[in-house]
Amino acid sequence: MAESTKAEKLELINKRIRAFPDFPVKGILFRDICPILKDPKALTAVIDLFEEHVRQTCPQIELIVGLDARGFLFGPLLAQRLGIGFVLVRKKGKLPGPTVSVSYALEYGKAEAEIQEDAVSPGQKVLIVDDLLATGGTLGAACDLMKKQQAEVVGCLVVIEMTELKGVERLKPYPVFSLVHF
Amino acid sequence: MAESTKAEKLELINKRIRAFPDFPVKGILFRDICPILKDPKALTAVIDLFEEHVRQTCPQIELIVGLDARGFLFGPLLAQRLGIGFVLVRKKGKLPGPTVSVSYALEYGKAEAEIQEDAVSPGQKVLIVDDLLATGGTLGAACDLMKKQQAEVVGCLVVIEMTELKGVERLKPYPVFSLVHF
Repeated sequence: MAESTKAEKLELINKRIRAFPDFPVKGILFRDICPILKDPKALTAVIDLFEEHVRQTCPQIELIVGLDARGFLFGPLLAQRLGIGFVLVRKKGKLPGPTVSVSYALEYGKAEAEIQEDAVSPGQKVLIVDDLLATGGTLGAACDLMKKQQAEVVGCLVVIEMTELKGVERLKPYPVFSLVHF
Repeated sequence: MAESTKAEKLELINKRIRAFPDFPVKGILFRDICPILKDPKALTAVIDLFEEHVRQTCPQIELIVGLDARGFLFGPLLAQRLGIGFVLVRKKGKLPGPTVSVSYALEYGKAEAEIQEDAVSPGQKVLIVDDLLATGGTLGAACDLMKKQQAEVVGCLVVIEMTELKGVERLKPYPVFSLVHF
């Protein structure tokens, strides 16, 4: 069987994203990626396209960084494809040992993102993976954590980008690669 | 290069688990799996051994179910190896659309685990994956969720089993397969 083309893969991924109005709060149209995970071909397609992008644009990457919790669904798969390690960014208080944290603004209030102090080394080239880019709050915090540890953020990868929320602006100068745009 | 033996894989996994005393609270020796994720060979070893177990004992499995958040690190990798889908069990309030939930006891207070109503179908054979089995509270809740949806839990897979806490007893009649015992 011939391998799917890039367009076929994107079409399949698109078909496996559902929209739920007013979740988690009124006025938000929530994009649900669970059907991607449930369809092994769609999940393979996501990782294929991420891998292709990395090999073409930044093959020298040393670590994949993934965000708690939905970045954990995609990050280790990409890291294994590339034969490199995966590092966890978690919500405050979840990681043992010496940690480094940054706080960032949420729509209401604040949150803190944390990594283990020895998770990345100065100069290491990292890519940050999450499921979705909205305003870029959490991904921005992850970039700040990497900067604090003197790692080099080569870019951010997401399955879905909510274009209107201008997360790409927020994350500058770090480039964002996204598969599906709403 | 010859493939590592099972014993070599287990030795590598063991070497990549760190212990932190008094985390998250005094008296708890926390087993940290982050170094497994950071070492691509160790992560491959975990998935190799999970896959081998599944192919030998329950090749008819239809879905992998993973627990929020560390089950997300291993579950999709195993599901992709087996060419089957992955379903998310999350903490209450994280999943959009119609959901089913069960509450379970924590050391202090209660928590609720949730799946999407259409995540599993009656009669589907599922395996539940998490990083660690302690008292079995969360894994037990996931089993209850599957039962509520009339799916058939064929077993639970964990990287680490804390033998003294008797989680295996709690999860009966569902068999548990674990790689490392403390």
